[in-house]
Amino acid sequence: MQKQPNTLLVIGGVAGGASAAARARRHSEHTRIIVLERGPDVSFANCGLPYHIGGDIPDREELAVQTPESLKGMLNLDIRTMTEAIAIDRANKAVKVRSVATGEESSISYDKLVLAPGASPLRPPLPGIDSPKIMTLRNLEDMDRIKAAVESVDSVAIIGAGFIGLEMAEQLHEIGKQVSVVELQPQILPQVDAEMVRPLENALRDKGINLILGDGIQGFEEIESGLSAKLNSGATLDVGLVILSIGVRPESGLARDAGLEIGPRGHVVVDAWQRTNDPDVYCVGDVCETEDPILGKRTAIPLGGPANRQGRTAADHIHLGDKALKYPGSIGTSIVRVFDYAAGIAGYSERRLKMEDVPYQTVTVNGPSHASYFPGAETITLKLMWSPDDGRVLGAEASGKDGVDKRLDIIATAIRGRLTIDDLAHLELAYAPPFGNAKDVVNVAGFAAGNMRDGLLLPVADLQSAGEQIIDVRPPASAEKKPVPGAKNIPLTELRGRLDEIDRSKPVYVICQMGKTSYFGARILANNGYEAYSILGGAHHQV
Amino acid sequence: MQKQPNTLLVIGGVAGGASAAARARRHSEHTRIIVLERGPDVSFANCGLPYHIGGDIPDREELAVQTPESLKGMLNLDIRTMTEAIAIDRANKAVKVRSVATGEESSISYDKLVLAPGASPLRPPLPGIDSPKIMTLRNLEDMDRIKAAVESVDSVAIIGAGFIGLEMAEQLHEIGKQVSVVELQPQILPQVDAEMVRPLENALRDKGINLILGDGIQGFEEIESGLSAKLNSGATLDVGLVILSIGVRPESGLARDAGLEIGPRGHVVVDAWQRTNDPDVYCVGDVCETEDPILGKRTAIPLGGPANRQGRTAADHIHLGDKALKYPGSIGTSIVRVFDYAAGIAGYSERRLKMEDVPYQTVTVNGPSHASYFPGAETITLKLMWSPDDGRVLGAEASGKDGVDKRLDIIATAIRGRLTIDDLAHLELAYAPPFGNAKDVVNVAGFAAGNMRDGLLLPVADLQSAGEQIIDVRPPASAEKKPVPGAKNIPLTELRGRLDEIDRSKPVYVICQMGKTSYFGARILANNGYEAYSILGGAHHQV
Repeated sequence: MQKQPNTLLVIGGVAGGASAAARARRHSEHTRIIVLERGPDVSFANCGLPYHIGGDIPDREELAVQTPESLKGMLNLDIRTMTEAIAIDRANKAVKVRSVATGEESSISYDKLVLAPGASPLRPPLPGIDSPKIMTLRNLEDMDRIKAAVESVDSVAIIGAGFIGLEMAEQLHEIGKQVSVVELQPQILPQVDAEMVRPLENALRDKGINLILGDGIQGFEEIESGLSAKLNSGATLDVGLVILSIGVRPESGLARDAGLEIGPRGHVVVDAWQRTNDPDVYCVGDVCETEDPILGKRTAIPLGGPANRQGRTAADHIHLGDKALKYPGSIGTSIVRVFDYAAGIAGYSERRLKMEDVPYQTVTVNGPSHASYFPGAETITLKLMWSPDDGRVLGAEASGKDGVDKRLDIIATAIRGRLTIDDLAHLELAYAPPFGNAKDVVNVAGFAAGNMRDGLLLPVADLQSAGEQIIDVRPPASAEKKPVPGAKNIPLTELRGRLDEIDRSKPVYVICQMGKTSYFGARILANNGYEAYSILGGAHHQV
Repeated sequence: MQKQPNTLLVIGGVAGGASAAARARRHSEHTRIIVLERGPDVSFANCGLPYHIGGDIPDREELAVQTPESLKGMLNLDIRTMTEAIAIDRANKAVKVRSVATGEESSISYDKLVLAPGASPLRPPLPGIDSPKIMTLRNLEDMDRIKAAVESVDSVAIIGAGFIGLEMAEQLHEIGKQVSVVELQPQILPQVDAEMVRPLENALRDKGINLILGDGIQGFEEIESGLSAKLNSGATLDVGLVILSIGVRPESGLARDAGLEIGPRGHVVVDAWQRTNDPDVYCVGDVCETEDPILGKRTAIPLGGPANRQGRTAADHIHLGDKALKYPGSIGTSIVRVFDYAAGIAGYSERRLKMEDVPYQTVTVNGPSHASYFPGAETITLKLMWSPDDGRVLGAEASGKDGVDKRLDIIATAIRGRLTIDDLAHLELAYAPPFGNAKDVVNVAGFAAGNMRDGLLLPVADLQSAGEQIIDVRPPASAEKKPVPGAKNIPLTELRGRLDEIDRSKPVYVICQMGKTSYFGARILANNGYEAYSILGGAHHQV
């Protein structure tokens, strides 16, 4: 029934490799499963590394999920740590390996091979880059080194404001370090559209973190107190330690040297069962390309979830053949916590849609994390992108203090099901006052998108795009507390009686606090013959 | 372009009626919109009522979301409270109304009529049922009455352990009352399968709540200290006050008298635009039937989310005609909080599938609410039901202390998208240690379901269904701490070496703590030729 290779060799023992090995053992008790790992650790919780440095996860053992011994006991895996694969001899189905400790070389034969070498942190060839005071974070050893090093410094610069950079910034602040974050883009989290991460940028600054956006590094120089980083802008930044988190590069050298097909950005090319162009060699995790199921393009998503499920897919195909479930591609769902805030994305950002020249429409709405009348509700901002052709959801971004993960998961599921804005409008989500809303912010996004299509909502994305006639329909107290520049305040409840104060010959741009009352106001005006626009997200999002 | 009725009359001013009126105003500024409400309040937060009684929502104003005056100001609605609709004259398109205060009768003409009278709490004709010490909770007046009455009693009996009954039990306990809960079914929350709500039953008992399951009420008798309830079992229960929450009955009398079509359970029959068999009369909310989009049957779901969106649908159809978005039916997603626990359902329970004689398969898995190595993770139990024909998800239930709402929303979205168990396996959910898992419990449910289909997992639903040869593969310490009756302990890590202790001639039933290691153990045994079953949910769920 099942195919059982005599020897399954896995290169790389963390997320994707460990999953492939574990799943293979479920299929076959008698296959010899060998896992090679260049480092000393396997199957550790790599996403948790920043949180041990900051103390959220005090016990290092929590991160060392498995050991070679535990995997031997549980799964009868032959784990060989400190063992580097240096060449694949596909003709003879063997991998040449070298002991990291002794340098001794040997060869291991395989029937099936799974490559899961991952991706390594980028280290650009800048002057001074080789200083031991410039660190990267990939594994437990890196973590231990950083944890030891930060003890003796007061200040740390983090280069790159992606997910890991921001997690490190938060954690190092929590243990009292003076933290600077340098990001080449004019925003943090470049995967997410700029306006959506502004609350997180504010949160970082409120904590006293020195956030340097739109500036890059020209080089480093060792100084007595640590390192001096020279920025593109000409400024210098003197800190005790630098952590580099500007991205990763797929470790595809071994695959490339073995003649396996490599994609345009250096990733190993695989089919939907994670098979390379050699039918006996599979490849999973950060090192490989996959399909983008939203637009059918190729993509590469270096995240733990996809890696784990790709490993499982490879093992299934090895044992079940073509009746194995295909890997359906990656949509890049991701999230980061920054102090009290979270932000994330599922599918395409507006920026990526623009770059790819894909037609789209977008709307941004606010809503409470649970019933606004129940204590503890926090505002979630949700930005939705969809196809104007068929209303299909292309992506969404969310930020806020609570419930961001839930909304991203709903959208991720909706994207998988190829749901439309109309489907979002009518999602029937769990509602009790502590947990949700009779009309959740996801429903509201669907409503707003449908209103745009049906011509009920003429939106303006931001205050900057609004014309000169701006009407603020908030109650006077709110309008005075957080005024909108250039706006005239006519509270919604007075709007119908004060239409003569609004110039019919010019478009009207209506704003409120959350972007809901402004829509009500714009409808009143439109139904009275005005060309009326609603400013999305309201003062909460714009001012 | 749009149709604009001269007069839109709405009967009922809470969830569905208020939504219909508000949405109608977005479409048309010049329609006269009249809303009749028998009570003194409109558009209040009916789902929040228990939480003001218990003090979670201290400010009553939070629940009185809108007033007739605020709705006049914002939406130019003509709200007539304390006004009861007593007859519909469909031939003349008029509704006869009566002032609750004066008894004065008059008539209001309509072009379009929306019925949203809701459903009223059941009050069965038992001896003593008319005692003023037996209360029900539907509106702010009921809430005020109960809040005042509980002040002078020490003990309260809640009849019916559905959502509202449990919320009341929690809240009354929180303000120091001695609470009894009487439920005719042998479990709380009869919408959800029995084994899934056991943690909540334990939580109630742990708090000292007197939980009486599988027993009903024969009648009540007033006694000096309050009321004495006589139970079917012969027991009596003496308390200061009784709250009746055994369900609701659709208030369809007005519609029935007007000759509108009524369904088998007394609900008003509507089409996908919420239209009754009279094209000028719509009906929304708890009073009407709708479609069950999972199996295409008729259903009625008395919940706030559906009511609100049905109101919107009716208003859209009145103004846009057949290009209005159809209401897609209700799947009954619901959730309740009981102290630290939550439990809920989306779609079909196993019991309902059995009752409807629908073929299904089911699996129950456990998983952490977020990365188990990050502080604060709590176990979620997820039970999944799907169609053996095509793997389509038919329903799911979840319980636990954190993240239950998120998983139900993911499943609700999956059901809307007609996703399969394989789709669940590969959902790409938001993962960072504080928020999720590389393999979330929803993925794991999809994995387990696929394993069942592919013959890798032979499950046994509960310990009672297991045969005599039970192997507990937990480490000895865990096995001793929470022993499984009749089981022999062979830790997983020793299993391969101790196969000779297991009788090959009999099926083996493997159990562990969470239902994962037992699957690993069963695979080892199956791959060694045993007939090996894994006991779902593990000791966490079974013992």
